Amino acid sequence: MTRMLQSYVQDAWWSPAEGVDGTEVRDASTGEAVAVVSSEGLDVGAALEHGRTVGQRSLAALTFHQRAVLLKKMALALQERKDELYALSARTGATKNDSWVDIEGGIGVLFTYSGKGRRELPNATIQLDGPLEVLAKDGSFLGRHIRTTLPGVAVQINAFNFPVWGPLEKLAPAFLAGMPSVIKPATPTAYVTEHLVRILVESGLLPDGSVQLITGSVRELFEHARLGDVVSFTGSASTADSLRRHDAVQRGGVIFNAETDSINASVLGPDATPGTPEFDAYVRQLVTEMTAKAGQKCTAIRRAIVPAALADEVVAAVDARIAEKVVVGDPRSEGVTMGALASLEQRDEVLRQVRTLVDGGGEIVVGSAEAPEGDGAFLSPILLRFDDPRAPRAHDTEAFGPVSSLLTYETPAQAADLVVRGGGSLVTSVASADPAFVSAITRRVASANGRILLLDRDDARSSTGHGSPLPMLVHGGPGRAGGGEELGGIRSVFHYMQRTAIQGSPEMLTAVTGVWHTGARVVSDGVHPFRKSLEELRIGDQVVSAEREITLADIEHFAEFTGDTFYAHMDEEAAAANPFFPGRVAHGYLLVSFAAGLFVSPEPGPVLANYGLENLRFLTPVSPGDRIRVTLTAKQIIPRETDEYGEVHWDAVLTNQRDETVATYDVLTLVSKAPAAVPAVA
Amino acid sequence: MTRMLQSYVQDAWWSPAEGVDGTEVRDASTGEAVAVVSSEGLDVGAALEHGRTVGQRSLAALTFHQRAVLLKKMALALQERKDELYALSARTGATKNDSWVDIEGGIGVLFTYSGKGRRELPNATIQLDGPLEVLAKDGSFLGRHIRTTLPGVAVQINAFNFPVWGPLEKLAPAFLAGMPSVIKPATPTAYVTEHLVRILVESGLLPDGSVQLITGSVRELFEHARLGDVVSFTGSASTADSLRRHDAVQRGGVIFNAETDSINASVLGPDATPGTPEFDAYVRQLVTEMTAKAGQKCTAIRRAIVPAALADEVVAAVDARIAEKVVVGDPRSEGVTMGALASLEQRDEVLRQVRTLVDGGGEIVVGSAEAPEGDGAFLSPILLRFDDPRAPRAHDTEAFGPVSSLLTYETPAQAADLVVRGGGSLVTSVASADPAFVSAITRRVASANGRILLLDRDDARSSTGHGSPLPMLVHGGPGRAGGGEELGGIRSVFHYMQRTAIQGSPEMLTAVTGVWHTGARVVSDGVHPFRKSLEELRIGDQVVSAEREITLADIEHFAEFTGDTFYAHMDEEAAAANPFFPGRVAHGYLLVSFAAGLFVSPEPGPVLANYGLENLRFLTPVSPGDRIRVTLTAKQIIPRETDEYGEVHWDAVLTNQRDETVATYDVLTLVSKAPAAVPAVA
Repeated sequence: MTRMLQSYVQDAWWSPAEGVDGTEVRDASTGEAVAVVSSEGLDVGAALEHGRTVGQRSLAALTFHQRAVLLKKMALALQERKDELYALSARTGATKNDSWVDIEGGIGVLFTYSGKGRRELPNATIQLDGPLEVLAKDGSFLGRHIRTTLPGVAVQINAFNFPVWGPLEKLAPAFLAGMPSVIKPATPTAYVTEHLVRILVESGLLPDGSVQLITGSVRELFEHARLGDVVSFTGSASTADSLRRHDAVQRGGVIFNAETDSINASVLGPDATPGTPEFDAYVRQLVTEMTAKAGQKCTAIRRAIVPAALADEVVAAVDARIAEKVVVGDPRSEGVTMGALASLEQRDEVLRQVRTLVDGGGEIVVGSAEAPEGDGAFLSPILLRFDDPRAPRAHDTEAFGPVSSLLTYETPAQAADLVVRGGGSLVTSVASADPAFVSAITRRVASANGRILLLDRDDARSSTGHGSPLPMLVHGGPGRAGGGEELGGIRSVFHYMQRTAIQGSPEMLTAVTGVWHTGARVVSDGVHPFRKSLEELRIGDQVVSAEREITLADIEHFAEFTGDTFYAHMDEEAAAANPFFPGRVAHGYLLVSFAAGLFVSPEPGPVLANYGLENLRFLTPVSPGDRIRVTLTAKQIIPRETDEYGEVHWDAVLTNQRDETVATYDVLTLVSKAPAAVPAVA
Repeated sequence: MTRMLQSYVQDAWWSPAEGVDGTEVRDASTGEAVAVVSSEGLDVGAALEHGRTVGQRSLAALTFHQRAVLLKKMALALQERKDELYALSARTGATKNDSWVDIEGGIGVLFTYSGKGRRELPNATIQLDGPLEVLAKDGSFLGRHIRTTLPGVAVQINAFNFPVWGPLEKLAPAFLAGMPSVIKPATPTAYVTEHLVRILVESGLLPDGSVQLITGSVRELFEHARLGDVVSFTGSASTADSLRRHDAVQRGGVIFNAETDSINASVLGPDATPGTPEFDAYVRQLVTEMTAKAGQKCTAIRRAIVPAALADEVVAAVDARIAEKVVVGDPRSEGVTMGALASLEQRDEVLRQVRTLVDGGGEIVVGSAEAPEGDGAFLSPILLRFDDPRAPRAHDTEAFGPVSSLLTYETPAQAADLVVRGGGSLVTSVASADPAFVSAITRRVASANGRILLLDRDDARSSTGHGSPLPMLVHGGPGRAGGGEELGGIRSVFHYMQRTAIQGSPEMLTAVTGVWHTGARVVSDGVHPFRKSLEELRIGDQVVSAEREITLADIEHFAEFTGDTFYAHMDEEAAAANPFFPGRVAHGYLLVSFAAGLFVSPEPGPVLANYGLENLRFLTPVSPGDRIRVTLTAKQIIPRETDEYGEVHWDAVLTNQRDETVATYDVLTLVSKAPAAVPAVA
């Protein structure tokens, strides 16, 4: 008997009761039964509640960095067993290349979020958004924005085309944010996702309740969803529209984030005539997008928008390239470059949409709408051409397979107008070497797109391609593309967090954020803070330096030594004529250098290095005879999870003898965790 | 006959046809007729299209900074004629204080957005979001996020309680983003907003099509709204829910941003016993929030959450303060501190909700549910007390008037639980001097709130109060509070823009963004870029310095001169034991100082000052004998609108003789616009 897929809920594997029927899933190329899928009898409400309680607790016990380290370990665990995923993936109709995008792409998302989480988030559980706002002149009332984890569960409804990448690109940001995930794979390829989750469970890395899997229907999902939950959806626009209408979203405050297939465009520039690298790159990319994953990608090119004068040559070049490169068949067979669609039903649906395109004015100019006999869901690439580029069907009908439409334009404005007629797209690409054309069209169509790829001779080889969302760039788009946003690095982590403005005194803001705010309590206990290890150091630890007079001799000496003889330092009359200086003033870099001399603690100790500086502003000029001092306060302490040291950000304020602020900046240092040890670099 | 209010559409004043009936609006205190409101016959579709075409064009011709300058001029025009607004405002039942919040608060939003627009946005029409992402190792393929203006119109549906602040806090960010506004005031106070728009129109400052006003119903609004439009709504949760369901929002991609009244909470800490500054501040704030604007504020405190042990004392103190401070009456009368509700209908509605609260377990402990006879919509403050703090009505019923409920808690966890039962709030305040209590409760309830005010002895005097949204902090909240976000400085400007990922070669990214990217074309035309005025300078203008050797003598001399004798510079053995250094190395500040000496152009010229430095990172240590050079490239040019100079950001890269990158940073300079002139400081 065909195997019934399992779900993974409440930290245990779950199967439907004996005798439950399910949906049978077949191998895309052979029609052979692979698995049966059903969630009948599964308590969806209990699963969600498990995430909200157990999952929230176990993730809340970890910092962003600790979660990021786990993501990397999960990526390594998957990498170790990826052959198992490749074997299953082939059964979905995917070629080796298609599987590579899905499997390595998915693992890559985990690596990227692991790295970004540690580089771009603090080692803490809340995130500070934007700069300080001083709300009272005396500094006693401040404003700051923080982000905290939403208290619910992240339900992730995935599409059938990327059974590995799809769940992982949703899991990674939610996990990093501290939100437990419930993964719901699409039925036709659920057996791949089930195995993905099995590898993760067997790795022993998952915190309790942090990841659950429901294979099969989650029909009653919205009955159980509530404020604080997020539902992320990838799939068809029509399904997204019907889900979004549920009361839990409309009135209950459940966040619904959708990424839907859209009618994406690829524009060829007028300069990109045959023989140019841009023409070749355009055609190559168009054929790739038609055939990769058998065109079953929500980012695939559905509309090829080309200059009218070049249309025939584009058709000929596409035809030739398909003839030369594309071999359709079982992806496990030698020489095959394009696999099957996910199922016979899926192929029938694509052919229905092709007929709609033909009825709407499209003529098939490459390939044919004939499907081969047999149990495999095979279909050759099809390019349609529309006489009227504004024909509505060309802009609203998606054949989710190896199908694109060719539309022509006369002017750049027409090209932009055609792109926008898609009603909101995930991605548009532009192939041109003309910066003016590229800039004009990009600025015109950007608001209708989540991503725009600019293809020219410089990046034709290194480009990752029209159809590939990257973890560091946003994925999603307005209107027809679902109106949502995924990935984009840390941006998508914030979809699982609430932004809140906090107003209060420096002391209270410091207590809430864990970051020292000017005006809050300081500690000057006689021990230079540079003598304290990361474990001993506390935010608010401060050193106030001695005063140092800046003499004219200092300025002249510094000028001579460094070569910086800018007139504001050297020429009294010229300096006084400058609108910002009273006369000759000290070099800014002289002040910062003297400040370092004032706050330094020279003997070996926990402070290992000053690796940089942020937000330096020179606010009051320093004239010869002025005296400066520097106040240095530990502002933020960021221990590293995998090193024996961490980062400390110091608030530095230079003042003069009149207590005016001369300069402000943040000093960035690396500080050893242990009092004595000099750690090895990782 | 009572005056019929006008609308302002398609850059002209519009009145309904003779004989059209309308809704009569009455003075809140006297019942006297003030105005009649109707939009019957107004072509809403044409108004929206006018914004999308004429308004979009005229705003697109302006940069962020130019729009910001206009906002300031609009603020000044309103300030000049604010007495007219105060006179009208009094008719809505508002006291002088209430009007101050509405009118000065609204004008203040314009000033804030004008300042932030110029400080925090480039002088351009697109905005760069986040850092560069290098997508190919050789640097030929880069990613960058940009924001561009949405192509539609911003329809702003306002509540009756703030007829000046409400429209202005929506207009300012939309205007700055470049999106034309259509203002729809609430009927009961539309005469104030009509006059506000009249002052703006008469100022002559409004770009064509940038601001329109529809007084009266916009029932068919959603029939005309389409992808690219934004509808911002302030009002009741139930109206928001019904608007959100429209097809234009659900399927059409129209963005709907709601800010609704919510059941806000104010928590008294266990430490804040009678006699403490926090107890006094808590009671003072509670009474203020009950009586300001007669409690008709979506941010007002509806739930006073206090330790059970202190409840009696809170009630007594509130009672005493109301008796001492609150005089209800016509706001134009001497001594009155609390005005009327907006209308008799509004008062009836409040009393209905008070009965719901009583039926739900509340007992009136201050004030009474009796309303005085007469034509004025007067009502005295009412405090209810619930025996069961978890009674559902206390957390879901809003009496939109001078009404609060007292709820008690035993433990901090209970207090947090009560706050969250509001189902999402605009604001919660916490009065306590105990950082541990404040931090714990804030982190627990933050995800249920848009804003949290922390009240203690340090900020009790300077606090702007629980009920006051500030333009620099976000306003809005999850769930019951509408799920939207307004204000928050530039954050809300971005609600009117689309974020798009752009991938391409350095040359194309530079062309699209107007900001130089490493790898794009550079100009080294023999003229030092510091000799070029802002008008002559182009991004990509570059100077590559000569090489300079760093000697041990330089390092020792610098150490002695500055006092920075850190061991990594002075002690070969200790330095070599440090995990980051090969042995003695040069000071980072020495390198940056030498770099300045290498790239300086000392004679007076267009470069006026180096005002700061950003993102300095030391990447490769420099040992004695190494030779450094610096490459400086004009990266971003930001002319100021109201000064004779602007800012130039320079990309600085220090390399050594092996072409390794030693340090990278941005040098920030002020550069004169004109070639010769030395400008005056503004």
